[in-house]
Amino acid sequence: MSNKSFKLENINDIKRVFDSIDTFIFDCDGVIWRANNLIKGVKEALTLMKKNNKRTIFVTNNSTKTREEYFKKFSSFDLPIDINDIFSSAYSTAYYLRNVLDFPKDKRVYVLGTQGLIKEIEDVGVNAFGYEDNITEPFASEEDIFNEVKPDDSVGAVVVGFDMKVNYKKYSKAYTYITSNPDCHFLVTNSDITYPVQNFVLPEAGSVVAPLIAAVKNKEPVFLGKPTANMINCISQKFNLDLKRACMVGDRLDTDMVFGKNNNITTLLVLTGVTSEEALLNQDKIIPDYYIEGLNSFNQIQ
Amino acid sequence: MSNKSFKLENINDIKRVFDSIDTFIFDCDGVIWRANNLIKGVKEALTLMKKNNKRTIFVTNNSTKTREEYFKKFSSFDLPIDINDIFSSAYSTAYYLRNVLDFPKDKRVYVLGTQGLIKEIEDVGVNAFGYEDNITEPFASEEDIFNEVKPDDSVGAVVVGFDMKVNYKKYSKAYTYITSNPDCHFLVTNSDITYPVQNFVLPEAGSVVAPLIAAVKNKEPVFLGKPTANMINCISQKFNLDLKRACMVGDRLDTDMVFGKNNNITTLLVLTGVTSEEALLNQDKIIPDYYIEGLNSFNQIQ
Repeated sequence: MSNKSFKLENINDIKRVFDSIDTFIFDCDGVIWRANNLIKGVKEALTLMKKNNKRTIFVTNNSTKTREEYFKKFSSFDLPIDINDIFSSAYSTAYYLRNVLDFPKDKRVYVLGTQGLIKEIEDVGVNAFGYEDNITEPFASEEDIFNEVKPDDSVGAVVVGFDMKVNYKKYSKAYTYITSNPDCHFLVTNSDITYPVQNFVLPEAGSVVAPLIAAVKNKEPVFLGKPTANMINCISQKFNLDLKRACMVGDRLDTDMVFGKNNNITTLLVLTGVTSEEALLNQDKIIPDYYIEGLNSFNQIQ
Repeated sequence: MSNKSFKLENINDIKRVFDSIDTFIFDCDGVIWRANNLIKGVKEALTLMKKNNKRTIFVTNNSTKTREEYFKKFSSFDLPIDINDIFSSAYSTAYYLRNVLDFPKDKRVYVLGTQGLIKEIEDVGVNAFGYEDNITEPFASEEDIFNEVKPDDSVGAVVVGFDMKVNYKKYSKAYTYITSNPDCHFLVTNSDITYPVQNFVLPEAGSVVAPLIAAVKNKEPVFLGKPTANMINCISQKFNLDLKRACMVGDRLDTDMVFGKNNNITTLLVLTGVTSEEALLNQDKIIPDYYIEGLNSFNQIQ
């Protein structure tokens, strides 16, 4: 492995790499759009890829929205993509339950997360519940807990995602289900600790699940989003991919590029997001295979 | 240090240890009472200690009640104690804010915890707030966060205790106060991960605070309850104790006895709680200086 990332700038190099890849896996923010603005040349680059029979897949660790809701954003930019090309950590979790765990029809999943996450899980034919615990009245006494929180063998998995409506009722139920039933799976959509939003940083799913990780002593959680192998395995299995001919495209070294490198797929950093060329070259911890100004650079090929 | 705990059973040994101690620090459950039943001989033993000018101090990691509420339980058993002899992790936290940090009059403490914890803090003359965030309507959107969660330099400390009414509003506010103000203290009443209640085990303060510990990268929390030195320092400072002549009395090896040993005070295990003589002798990790059937054994002295 080289200790320097190779810059794709002349058309021969760009074409050579383009030809060596069948599947491009994209992070969205900083690659496709920045907040609500489409990045220059993206529509043309995606169209070029489609014309050349490349598969394009879009991954996000946001577990709160359904793929349908995400698809609306792509549609608003008139991008040539299919809803099945979208892989969120919520869908990845649903896919894992259905196809990897072969989740039993007579069991239920307790979801500490949004309605979007529950919908993704139900859409693959798995029974999910938990939204009713977005209570408007928090527990007032231990009696309330005893009345409502009970072991339940019908709960075969607890799934935790980002949740602005998290409360102690959810924590105590999730804790009780996980610890009282040795076969109960403990899944987390994604391990991100915080997320930036406008000028804020706020706790994300990796923080929301922390009380359960602290309290549950006999079981480790399974994470489904980037940068885990579970995410790439779900994608690979669903599309029957040859990962040797796949490329992870992203703007962040510590998430997207680590995701690609951990899973032994080609990595391409774009400079249209948070990482500058200077920042890339002034570190030697994470060396993407290639870097490029932006997706627009592919449009030289035609 | 001996690798075997010494059993106090004959009157000469009991009297020798009794005479070497000025201050007995008691854990309550398993020592004074079991749930709502007073343990045999406790009233007489405490009366004997008072008669011999021993100081008796009662410590609990429960942060949810005020000392006044705790005192009612002692009074119901007609025990000869003073409200100032009670040291809960809530009071310890209040004491630390007032006497160790010398918390400024013009600053406020954001409390993620119960009304009892807030009252203890206010009772030492420190401004506390947060109870109003026991909202009946959880956040519905990120807009709600932006409208309500803002950095606030008047917040000089965030205190986290056990809280059945925890929610994302509290987490996001606590996170924002701690991270936006470098001088903001980050205190936790006690580090207990779970607590047993009836036939249940549920997440305690150490779990409730876990999202903040995960998300806050630039600051470590300070814990105030057992088994920290902060708890013993607060007790020692308030009563001006000679710790060489103090003894921690408890029924648990991994909390009470560790608390005493970590802080270099004499340790005495009673067999009226969770630890049996067999369990004590069949391990060699935590060796209390002494062990005794129960407080009733002291009544041989007269």
